[in-house]
Amino acid sequence: MERTVNKLVILGSTGSVGRQTLDIVRAFPGRFEIVGLCNGFNTELLKTQIDEFSPRYVGTLGDIEPGYGGAVFAPAAEIAALPEVDFVMASTVGCAGMSSTLAALSAGKTVGLANKEVVIMAGQLLMDVATANGATILPVDSEPSAIWQCLEGEVSEPSRLIITASGGAFRDRTWDSLDDVTPQEALRHPTWSMGNKITIDSATLMNKAFEVIESRWMFDIPFDRIDVTIHRQSIVHSMVEFTDGTLKAQLGPTDMRQVIQYAMFYPKRQSNSNLPILDAVSMGALTFEPMDRSLYPCFELALEYGQKRGTYPAVLAGADEAAVMLFLNGDIKFTQIPDIVLNTLSAHSVIITPTIGDTVDAANWATETTLARYNSSTILS
Amino acid sequence: MERTVNKLVILGSTGSVGRQTLDIVRAFPGRFEIVGLCNGFNTELLKTQIDEFSPRYVGTLGDIEPGYGGAVFAPAAEIAALPEVDFVMASTVGCAGMSSTLAALSAGKTVGLANKEVVIMAGQLLMDVATANGATILPVDSEPSAIWQCLEGEVSEPSRLIITASGGAFRDRTWDSLDDVTPQEALRHPTWSMGNKITIDSATLMNKAFEVIESRWMFDIPFDRIDVTIHRQSIVHSMVEFTDGTLKAQLGPTDMRQVIQYAMFYPKRQSNSNLPILDAVSMGALTFEPMDRSLYPCFELALEYGQKRGTYPAVLAGADEAAVMLFLNGDIKFTQIPDIVLNTLSAHSVIITPTIGDTVDAANWATETTLARYNSSTILS
Repeated sequence: MERTVNKLVILGSTGSVGRQTLDIVRAFPGRFEIVGLCNGFNTELLKTQIDEFSPRYVGTLGDIEPGYGGAVFAPAAEIAALPEVDFVMASTVGCAGMSSTLAALSAGKTVGLANKEVVIMAGQLLMDVATANGATILPVDSEPSAIWQCLEGEVSEPSRLIITASGGAFRDRTWDSLDDVTPQEALRHPTWSMGNKITIDSATLMNKAFEVIESRWMFDIPFDRIDVTIHRQSIVHSMVEFTDGTLKAQLGPTDMRQVIQYAMFYPKRQSNSNLPILDAVSMGALTFEPMDRSLYPCFELALEYGQKRGTYPAVLAGADEAAVMLFLNGDIKFTQIPDIVLNTLSAHSVIITPTIGDTVDAANWATETTLARYNSSTILS
Repeated sequence: MERTVNKLVILGSTGSVGRQTLDIVRAFPGRFEIVGLCNGFNTELLKTQIDEFSPRYVGTLGDIEPGYGGAVFAPAAEIAALPEVDFVMASTVGCAGMSSTLAALSAGKTVGLANKEVVIMAGQLLMDVATANGATILPVDSEPSAIWQCLEGEVSEPSRLIITASGGAFRDRTWDSLDDVTPQEALRHPTWSMGNKITIDSATLMNKAFEVIESRWMFDIPFDRIDVTIHRQSIVHSMVEFTDGTLKAQLGPTDMRQVIQYAMFYPKRQSNSNLPILDAVSMGALTFEPMDRSLYPCFELALEYGQKRGTYPAVLAGADEAAVMLFLNGDIKFTQIPDIVLNTLSAHSVIITPTIGDTVDAANWATETTLARYNSSTILS
């Protein structure tokens, strides 16, 4: 039953989830071997990681002398598919993560999937690739991980998934009042510490719709059986309802390392003194309120287009990625995000039965079109 | 994997759990066959049940003409061990349930265990009988059932069990203010509808200590890793903490039929339109507060003696049973219950390594001694 995970590739090693994955590796000396580290442009941090973990392979888009640290430099997609690799942490951010994630799935790897955009882009297609190649996808995102944990050992289908939402940085404000919020304000998440892209997506609630879409594909359950509840404390990470009226919930501190570690040690649980413990006996009040969807235009929009067939979900992911960049870059207002995403979606010529390549093209088209339309100086990275 | 449960014996068919077990049987025509119905003295209701379910065997302490309804009349312990029986619902109340429950376990049956007193009396001994004979014990008590459900599919040991307590009928009053409460007041449980014995035990919090003891044996976890939290809403039925700091909780409406049905269909979940569904999205606030043990003398006392070796736990169960009878009969005040139980415990000559027979003798001695001391007119039933 026990799967020993020890030969790791981290896609996106310098991002938030990548760094925290290395925290787990560090906490269990000898338990994991870093075969490969792959990242985008953060060369400084990558060098530090190479110095510490001595990966045999490095894949980077950054400017670093080939052979640094004695590593073989190769494209991330090749490293993720190496025969000696048995676990790939897919923690890139955004649509650019598709090729390496796809390579890992095509090679039948066990993939910790933190990069939810690739599931938004090509949900069913990606699941089919995993099934066809005997790959295993393990969620590395607190809400889908909670659902996965609640489903463990259950032989009957769930009747409903209930995803919890903190409500993001602006949960106590109306949408109309957010015209002048700054990137700095939007990056102040009330409960979770995460990367920039997902934190802005949390503030717009785009991220919550992405989790609904991600869960639809990961757990093969229709959209109309996935609900969202506003749970301000972020202690219950999600719930599953079963046909007999019972629910299971997974609870814990808001620490992504717990979610990461669960995937890395699955099916075992591993004690780690670096991880916080929740005092459930004295945790006070947990609140659950229905979500007024009309208050969150990004949530509504994403659910609408995320449910459409063909390349629409990929365009949604690509356009959102661009809109978040534009906002962080100061090119647009926070409240323009949904309109900008919708404009790109409206301009898209959909392919109804796309290949995964088509979804990548559609996402790239959406990102580029969206950036170009707002004359941004943002560099695609 | 699926175990088809269809040939049932119900021990205590006219009690609260017994009647609700028959509700489940009624809801799934053809799915269960009632091999035997056994009860105490409620002859009127037993006859109605015989008329409806035509059991082949009947075991009763009541006054009913042998052969009624074409059934073979036999002792409950014999009926529970019949070769054709594959599921025994042990839903008798109190120490008298030991012989028939023991017979079912000795015969290697799958036993739905609602009668927690027998586990208090002889915890480890009973688990040993189950193991030695290949019997399976399935909890039929909302808190242990919740723990069981949370442990399903987990391969690692739990680090802590967190049992929720509504606080019972008098949760907003101090112990000292309860001198003059009537049985009718004590029987008004704020969240659950249950039998009289367990409802009084809930009001004193004796029942909560019994659940701690029950869980200690059923899940083979030390006492110091079982906690209790005051959860007034009774929506979270209990929680399990794992070594990685994660918790799982089981939630649901306060309806024993769900707990009963889970054991009867295990490992499958079965939809049942008669069961309520909890609206988790809008459930409002769930509160969790530490329990001030000093406020609940019965809880303290029961935990102290429930952890002792030998026949003390059996005397605890037997003396409590008598004290509850005395209170319901108007012979003693509510606040006398812990003192009366302690008096009997103090008078007991403990057997350190008892047989199950010794625990039965000790419990009976405790019940009789306690009743006799207060000159009760209560009839043992």
